[in-house]
Amino acid sequence: MIDRRGGTEAGLHRVLEPAGVLPQAALRLDASPRIGPDEVRVRVERLNLDAASYRQLHTAHGGDPDAIRAAVLEIITTRGKMHNPVTGSGGMLVGTVAEAGPDSPLGLKPGDRIATLVSLTLTPLAVTDGLARWDGRSEQIPAEGHAILFARSIAAVLPDDLPVPLALAVMDVCGAPALTHRVVAGYAAPSVAVLGAAGKSGTLALAAARRAGAARVVGLVPSEREEKALLATGLADQVVRADARDPVAVAAAIGAPVDVTVVCVDVPGCEHGAILATAPGGTVVFFSMATSFPAAALGAEGLAADVTMLIGNGYVPGHAEMALDLVRSIPAVRASFTARTGADSAQ
Amino acid sequence: MIDRRGGTEAGLHRVLEPAGVLPQAALRLDASPRIGPDEVRVRVERLNLDAASYRQLHTAHGGDPDAIRAAVLEIITTRGKMHNPVTGSGGMLVGTVAEAGPDSPLGLKPGDRIATLVSLTLTPLAVTDGLARWDGRSEQIPAEGHAILFARSIAAVLPDDLPVPLALAVMDVCGAPALTHRVVAGYAAPSVAVLGAAGKSGTLALAAARRAGAARVVGLVPSEREEKALLATGLADQVVRADARDPVAVAAAIGAPVDVTVVCVDVPGCEHGAILATAPGGTVVFFSMATSFPAAALGAEGLAADVTMLIGNGYVPGHAEMALDLVRSIPAVRASFTARTGADSAQ
Repeated sequence: MIDRRGGTEAGLHRVLEPAGVLPQAALRLDASPRIGPDEVRVRVERLNLDAASYRQLHTAHGGDPDAIRAAVLEIITTRGKMHNPVTGSGGMLVGTVAEAGPDSPLGLKPGDRIATLVSLTLTPLAVTDGLARWDGRSEQIPAEGHAILFARSIAAVLPDDLPVPLALAVMDVCGAPALTHRVVAGYAAPSVAVLGAAGKSGTLALAAARRAGAARVVGLVPSEREEKALLATGLADQVVRADARDPVAVAAAIGAPVDVTVVCVDVPGCEHGAILATAPGGTVVFFSMATSFPAAALGAEGLAADVTMLIGNGYVPGHAEMALDLVRSIPAVRASFTARTGADSAQ
Repeated sequence: MIDRRGGTEAGLHRVLEPAGVLPQAALRLDASPRIGPDEVRVRVERLNLDAASYRQLHTAHGGDPDAIRAAVLEIITTRGKMHNPVTGSGGMLVGTVAEAGPDSPLGLKPGDRIATLVSLTLTPLAVTDGLARWDGRSEQIPAEGHAILFARSIAAVLPDDLPVPLALAVMDVCGAPALTHRVVAGYAAPSVAVLGAAGKSGTLALAAARRAGAARVVGLVPSEREEKALLATGLADQVVRADARDPVAVAAAIGAPVDVTVVCVDVPGCEHGAILATAPGGTVVFFSMATSFPAAALGAEGLAADVTMLIGNGYVPGHAEMALDLVRSIPAVRASFTARTGADSAQ
């Protein structure tokens, strides 16, 4: 049993230390290029550090590009993965499949251009060019080297019909619309509120809620600027404004309690407002990594709130395809993404 | 809207500072004895500090009973509630209803002897006897004073047929069996694993899973002593032994992945084992306050695990009644509780 689930599938054989933990929790991975029968080796083109990681490195090294580059190289060399030890975060990568083992279930073949949808914190990685082409000034790192995907890794072939920066931005948050769709579809014509509705994951969650049959979709945003922008998209039936960290203000802004509340606000302290805004028998889905488990659990108990609270799992089968389809088929969703990623024609 | 849900119902009018937060998040509550129309005043008999809070106070004051007593009094006087500022935790209380407002929905009447099922961290409390009868040597505090219940508070009338310490011990963890029952009943004859199965909440979760129709119930425990004790109860079809913080060991011990995994182990680091042990389409219910939200969310994503992860909400309607009924009707459950609370005849 363990060999199928906990063994090579999850990459445990690549853990060098400490023994017995999963690759994400490991201090050091074996990034050697020779693949096992269920692994895939990818030729790396670009690393995308997550924003928190780049910000930390930038601050720690006073913005000095050479020092930042050296720090990233040091992490990758020491750990066998790009896992920022301070922030605990990683990012994703883009590359081309070099070799796929005969038992890999990922459906990839040599030459496929892919993005990884699992974190760099658990992806064996080796860099061979010293990151010489990176100017150290953004989280986008041109790189040469290789990375290893396990049987249980997730990777998506980059679509031909969308610019790469757009596709990456969409894939980065594709767990939110997929899980929102699943939860909303479990209710009959529910009302849905999305906190942080103008962000990337919030925009996709609104669109997914509508597609899943929501009868009423409310978007909550913090500022007048976002309120106007979101109203113009038509993605929400109603746009309201409140500080998501203020429970009373959130409940007052949303009005009648909703069946499903989706939290896409990436700041601490949004648990109680989400719970107050949700009707008995309803569900709160927390996507923010800033969510506090005890605050949610004790908050619901303290409010005698009979609500189901979900930890937003970033993996739902078919999540990348669903998110990309929302971008392709709903012009307002695409427009809100290209407003971030730059001109739609960018490569 | 806000007046019904966020206003007096949740006790916001009792928050003195900072403004706008819920009572649990407040630094200071108004514990004045005069009740609003939907409030209840309780004459306090006993406070039960939660174990973490008492342990912290005991350590901080070198076990000196007088210093511990003074510290508890200082907290209650300053904050208007017994909310340990270091641990963030509270406890529960036992008392008798003194006055129930005409609009209170709790169904309590003067003279009812009750236990509060919401945390002391959000319950307005005043003590009038200086805790003079408390020896400072345990978390059980005889006390005189009053406490206030809100419309959305939860309290249970103490049953006539069970000793008070037993009833309190059961009520303290009654959220776990209720939510376990609900989740297990959502599957057809599922397999269920309980991590930390020999503890109070674990024992009740095992019994609730069985009652909800589980086809196979596995209990995981850390030691040979607990393994033998749990085997003897017959509450689990299978008892296995592993360190719940070791993902590989947990998955290996449980064997075939289960449909529902219930985490009742109150130590950090049990997220990945629970996820690995759960089959695709399954559900993990986290009851431990030591659960890390990011570890669960990123862990599931890193394992491409299509599992639903629930934050264990301590409130499910009817939870106290269900837990007490399990204790009354299943001798092995009762025996495992009385082994902790002492002689079944204790008052």
